[in-house]
Amino acid sequence: MKIAELLPPAVAWDEAAGRLNIIDQTLLPGRLRQISLSGAEQVYAAIRSLQVRGAPAIGLAAAFGLYLAMMDCTAADKPAFMAELARRQQYLNSARPTAVNLSWALERLAQAAQACPAQDSETLKQTLLREAQAIAAEDAACCRAIGAHGLSLLKEGGAILTHCNAGHLATAAYGTALAPYYCAQEQGMKLKIYCDETRPLLQGARLTAFELSQAGADVTLLCDNMAASLLAAGAIDSVWVGADRIAANGDTANKTGTLNLAVLAKHFNIPFYVCAPTSTFDAATPSGAAIVIEQRPPQEVTEMWFSEPMAPAGIQVYNPAFDVTPASLISAFITEKGIIEGRG
Amino acid sequence: MKIAELLPPAVAWDEAAGRLNIIDQTLLPGRLRQISLSGAEQVYAAIRSLQVRGAPAIGLAAAFGLYLAMMDCTAADKPAFMAELARRQQYLNSARPTAVNLSWALERLAQAAQACPAQDSETLKQTLLREAQAIAAEDAACCRAIGAHGLSLLKEGGAILTHCNAGHLATAAYGTALAPYYCAQEQGMKLKIYCDETRPLLQGARLTAFELSQAGADVTLLCDNMAASLLAAGAIDSVWVGADRIAANGDTANKTGTLNLAVLAKHFNIPFYVCAPTSTFDAATPSGAAIVIEQRPPQEVTEMWFSEPMAPAGIQVYNPAFDVTPASLISAFITEKGIIEGRG
Repeated sequence: MKIAELLPPAVAWDEAAGRLNIIDQTLLPGRLRQISLSGAEQVYAAIRSLQVRGAPAIGLAAAFGLYLAMMDCTAADKPAFMAELARRQQYLNSARPTAVNLSWALERLAQAAQACPAQDSETLKQTLLREAQAIAAEDAACCRAIGAHGLSLLKEGGAILTHCNAGHLATAAYGTALAPYYCAQEQGMKLKIYCDETRPLLQGARLTAFELSQAGADVTLLCDNMAASLLAAGAIDSVWVGADRIAANGDTANKTGTLNLAVLAKHFNIPFYVCAPTSTFDAATPSGAAIVIEQRPPQEVTEMWFSEPMAPAGIQVYNPAFDVTPASLISAFITEKGIIEGRG
Repeated sequence: MKIAELLPPAVAWDEAAGRLNIIDQTLLPGRLRQISLSGAEQVYAAIRSLQVRGAPAIGLAAAFGLYLAMMDCTAADKPAFMAELARRQQYLNSARPTAVNLSWALERLAQAAQACPAQDSETLKQTLLREAQAIAAEDAACCRAIGAHGLSLLKEGGAILTHCNAGHLATAAYGTALAPYYCAQEQGMKLKIYCDETRPLLQGARLTAFELSQAGADVTLLCDNMAASLLAAGAIDSVWVGADRIAANGDTANKTGTLNLAVLAKHFNIPFYVCAPTSTFDAATPSGAAIVIEQRPPQEVTEMWFSEPMAPAGIQVYNPAFDVTPASLISAFITEKGIIEGRG
């Protein structure tokens, strides 16, 4: 069975209802529940609160969110429509700062509307919806292609390590970092896969371990700080991660802890692969130093998920949601267009 | 105020009651509660369940535990006493496998009894108690000396990073890795200190952040996987950890995640210091490869502390309690006898 047949999509447009259905990922692994969103505010809140997360899925949700935001727009002419669109675009874009897919998807919708010869709001709205649907279809195709390219780097009986969730739940289908694994699985290749729990939000434990279990994978969970001993023991053949933004020089922002793994992989001489659609490459950002890293609330570390606070009240907390891995630590980028050699 | 004046000791012998008082560290940081132990079974359970933890504190607890175990011994002669002692020693020694201090402290008591010229049980029991008290006094003195030696490696206005808890709560006083910090604080030196939360048992968040907060330190908590970005940002001058067992070649077993930090420190060219009394050096263990690493239950990763399970039911979990840092990654060992240069 393919993963897409085992789990509903992370983000799915409901044509009949005119609403956006997402899996509420804050409830996993305990409850698999889809929720239905209408209006920009609900989509903004879902992105902000991580009910939908993963760079490609955020882009998808925002694209449909922008269409939902404009559904009730009654602008008399195109300039008024475009002005309203720009306001809604800016609002949705502020939901989270790091993943480039968010601004990229919103900008694609804005440009599609701009390029549309029609002047009336209804046609412009339909243009937005078609563009969002195109992004979803392209993302699924991209992920499938990433999987096919990445597959060439896997070998029967091998073992791989991944971080956070860059799988089915982070994309329209297949995932980015997990796409090669799912492609291997479809071909009957046997692989062991290890996933970091990924503190503080536990996307590895809650999401990656969940979707891989659903897919019948031979998956083992570990705490982030245990990767070193696993790599030292020679238990891992390669490390696979996604990306939230790749700068022009190859520096890559991804979930906090990615840099940690990249340094370990380098030290233990294990290939470190970044999987991302080319839309994640941001030519406007020269290097990692220019990437804005989202700092998130202390409570995510000290209280969230726990039955009682796990640190003394008022403690200072360093909680960057992402880190930047320099290109020099990356063996290769796996994109839908092929494999780009890194400098690591 | 010194830390010893702000918090009760982790392990304290109550002479009047003939019982061992420990802080139940599983209740921190929410509740600071001392519990009173009598009998070997209670001490064994307290060590096994991590109510008392930290290599030196485990040694202390076991030493008093062995005396408690023998309190009701009515052996008719010394051979019978020693035979019973050996059984109780073996039992307590099995509570946890990795920290050398446990077997070392128990063996010291056995040798003291063996060396005692008396034949009667009462005198032999008093010998055991005096030896346990000597170990406690020596541990406090050792930690103070480690602090004094380590202080020479700290500088005003600097920032240090530590892992797990190797502080007041892990020893008779001062700690090992935290002793230099506390000595610096007593001298009025201003330092920032960062502590890894230390998954899965959160000793950094629950214990280190707690005791440092109590001591009025400028302490910041982070998830283990965030250390890389902190080190990359140049925010840390040196990394300080304790040790559970140091092999003859300098390979060091310590809390899981220590190897991770050591690799990062090497990569970012930051000194990595291991603080331990010389009793932690185990000449009988040639290298790290010979150190038994305790594997602990999956539930510590997936369920413990959480309000509901954070991973799918039945997931495989890699949960080593310790890892081994090769001597080549250690800048120096800070002992009570002075600083030993490492090969890192």
